[in-house]
Amino acid sequence: MAKAPVLTPRAEDFPRWYQDVINKAELADNGPVRGTMVIRPYGYGLWERMQSEMDARIKRAGAQNAYFPMFIPQHYLTREAEHVEGFAPELAVVTHGGGKQLDEPVVVRPTSETIVNEYFSKWVQSYRDLPLLINQWANVVRWEKRPRTFLRTTEFLWQEGHTAHATYEEARAYAAMIHRDVYQNFMEEILAISVVPGRKTPDERFAGAINTLTLEAMMGDGKALQLGTSHELGQNFAKAFDTDFLTDTGGRAHVWQTSWGSTTRMVGGLIMVHGDDNGLRIPPRVAAVQVVVLAVKEDEAVLAKVRELGEQLRAAGLRVTVDDRVDTPFGRRSVDWELKGVPLRIEVGPRDLENGSCVLVRRIRGEKTPATLSSLAATIPAILEEDQALLLRQSAEFRNARTLDVDSVEQAHEAAATGWARIPWAKLGAQGAAALAEHGITVRCLVLPDGSVPDSDDAPDSLAIVARAY
Amino acid sequence: MAKAPVLTPRAEDFPRWYQDVINKAELADNGPVRGTMVIRPYGYGLWERMQSEMDARIKRAGAQNAYFPMFIPQHYLTREAEHVEGFAPELAVVTHGGGKQLDEPVVVRPTSETIVNEYFSKWVQSYRDLPLLINQWANVVRWEKRPRTFLRTTEFLWQEGHTAHATYEEARAYAAMIHRDVYQNFMEEILAISVVPGRKTPDERFAGAINTLTLEAMMGDGKALQLGTSHELGQNFAKAFDTDFLTDTGGRAHVWQTSWGSTTRMVGGLIMVHGDDNGLRIPPRVAAVQVVVLAVKEDEAVLAKVRELGEQLRAAGLRVTVDDRVDTPFGRRSVDWELKGVPLRIEVGPRDLENGSCVLVRRIRGEKTPATLSSLAATIPAILEEDQALLLRQSAEFRNARTLDVDSVEQAHEAAATGWARIPWAKLGAQGAAALAEHGITVRCLVLPDGSVPDSDDAPDSLAIVARAY
Repeated sequence: MAKAPVLTPRAEDFPRWYQDVINKAELADNGPVRGTMVIRPYGYGLWERMQSEMDARIKRAGAQNAYFPMFIPQHYLTREAEHVEGFAPELAVVTHGGGKQLDEPVVVRPTSETIVNEYFSKWVQSYRDLPLLINQWANVVRWEKRPRTFLRTTEFLWQEGHTAHATYEEARAYAAMIHRDVYQNFMEEILAISVVPGRKTPDERFAGAINTLTLEAMMGDGKALQLGTSHELGQNFAKAFDTDFLTDTGGRAHVWQTSWGSTTRMVGGLIMVHGDDNGLRIPPRVAAVQVVVLAVKEDEAVLAKVRELGEQLRAAGLRVTVDDRVDTPFGRRSVDWELKGVPLRIEVGPRDLENGSCVLVRRIRGEKTPATLSSLAATIPAILEEDQALLLRQSAEFRNARTLDVDSVEQAHEAAATGWARIPWAKLGAQGAAALAEHGITVRCLVLPDGSVPDSDDAPDSLAIVARAY
Repeated sequence: MAKAPVLTPRAEDFPRWYQDVINKAELADNGPVRGTMVIRPYGYGLWERMQSEMDARIKRAGAQNAYFPMFIPQHYLTREAEHVEGFAPELAVVTHGGGKQLDEPVVVRPTSETIVNEYFSKWVQSYRDLPLLINQWANVVRWEKRPRTFLRTTEFLWQEGHTAHATYEEARAYAAMIHRDVYQNFMEEILAISVVPGRKTPDERFAGAINTLTLEAMMGDGKALQLGTSHELGQNFAKAFDTDFLTDTGGRAHVWQTSWGSTTRMVGGLIMVHGDDNGLRIPPRVAAVQVVVLAVKEDEAVLAKVRELGEQLRAAGLRVTVDDRVDTPFGRRSVDWELKGVPLRIEVGPRDLENGSCVLVRRIRGEKTPATLSSLAATIPAILEEDQALLLRQSAEFRNARTLDVDSVEQAHEAAATGWARIPWAKLGAQGAAALAEHGITVRCLVLPDGSVPDSDDAPDSLAIVARAY
């Protein structure tokens, strides 16, 4: 059956394809207040799976969840000079509460370093209270001038980690560990997105940090998207909020801190890395529905079989939906599941049933093959893992093919039309970066030739990855 | 070892005991903006377990999670007349965003019926789209004049369910099912809190509802706390937002709706129902730490044993902490775990070890008994279930002993000094209720003599439960 051309082709208009996918796959709607979004059940199901996998990694990293109020007194923000400068233009301000004008306006958290430090100052007394490792799942608000669903929204959902340590070295090692073992591991193992770990240049750092580590991914149009950052805060907030402690030698010292976050923008990244002209391709490990079992048409034996199969596959630990809505044409349902990117479809019709077979559609590789019904429960787990691995491989290959090593600002500019450029940082410098920025091309991060992360701003052999970015 | 009198005794000053427990067990701190709270890891751990158990029940009830923006255009609120009247005095209003005054102020959601209906109107086209069953986990803001940690806070965390149905009967049945199979089941099976299901009088209904079902629990001082409500909204919001659909007979009709919520106030209820003068008593099913294995003092064999035991018990599926902080006096650690209400403590010292034994402290019944180390993994699961059941029984017995059947407003007033009164609603009436309200005593709900929930406001044999309430 011919497929309806429901989506704008990616090559024709990538941003429009992206919005088409979001609308047609029922991932999200625009909210009534500009820049906000309604995350619909199919989109939220992705976020729930992400949360659960991310949360498990954060807990393994030793952090505990907590919850801080979203209302922050305005004067907190001003205590750390760079921080307020960075966030002031994006704040939402509550001036009235309970029918009265407030004595001091409160801001809705754009991030929680300030309010967290206020409490760390109370909770940390001595070196025995360190390290203090906290994470929170929350909504935050940053007023967006150019909103785009999932990627830049005025309100978004995220986790933010906040930790305090006794020494510079320990804080530094913790930020690097989160970057690697929590974020990079999650992006690659669960989202099947190959990412480039790197260091932000001083200009691109988090407001108030002494170092920002980032993970950059290439989208289907060659642009970059930052997915997860981990910051060394040094003692900046500790000094601003006087977060100090009794050291093991009887002195007093300010704590060394980290913060790190990952957000609902990962849903946008997932769409733009794996999606194709037929819609989403969801990695099996993050899919709320891994397998859909479809009855091709109304037929008692077929309906009984798809339901039985659903139970069997669920018993095998798979996340399964049975589509027995035979009053809707099979073609339309099939296109819809294709669009929604469910990794595996099992199509069962009356003739298949007679032969003890079915059609297996592997969404990720776009393959349709006949299969034996009785073998499905045994073979599907391995098939899903194969396709999960394929997505990761494809995302790495796509990025590698579109990343050019260049030698000049001009070449970098040219390369950024279709992908990324890698250029010696010593050659580009702040001046070259500024020249590129005029064309909307930015330094995404610094990396070392062997792929590792530079441990200082001026590591001599650093390479800059430059690209257009979301 | 004598225990330090860390808490105000409950009989001396119950509200102060409550705050003492919250502070000393490190459940929460007051936030910087009046009425807000910081939920600390030990408190948030309780909430996480509650979320996970509640979420599973909500999903079994067929609802899917989604997320709606927290910013609601002010004019949405005014569309449903009773709704705005109920919530206007409690709103937080954002007047500035992104450095500019907003054209229309936005309110921070006090609840989401209005914004949800705006989208339900788009998503529901025909009877085939019904029922639509949505839930969200979110923060909400209601400006509190008399805040109290967990019980009444300006910002709190909750889940709010919102559903749309084709018929009055179906909506009604769904609200009742949530009330019974999700909320009552959760309170009793997980929180071990015996609750009275009932119907709110018209005066106590949710603003905009045609019926509110409630679950009321008796706290340790005899007052009532409302834990979870389920509302029939009728067609009030559907008409205000024009949420209508094509019926199966080709006509158009407004949907029938429900909404239902449960909040972080349940943490407060848990403290006040089960706590005693030594601190919390956490029901095993909701405890983030079910068992703590304590090394009594520094001793190599003891330390090795407690760690090994920890592993063994974890392998048996238990949530276990090993307390090997032998540089802190055993007495202090022991009092602290008592305070934190961990259901089971296993204390291992050098002499115990020689005998292959330990001391088992059952926090919930306050019993200390010797036990054989080798039998623990096999016996503990049943012990925890026994103590879970005991808490539920105790909470029912306590309430029953303090609930009096009375015949007059005067007797009801008197009974409310120490507990609840049950009085025929026909005898009390709106006038009697108003007289009691002057003394801070309110009608918590209406019930039928057999314990079931009246299905109308004027069911002739309804009994009113009256009490002081949080």
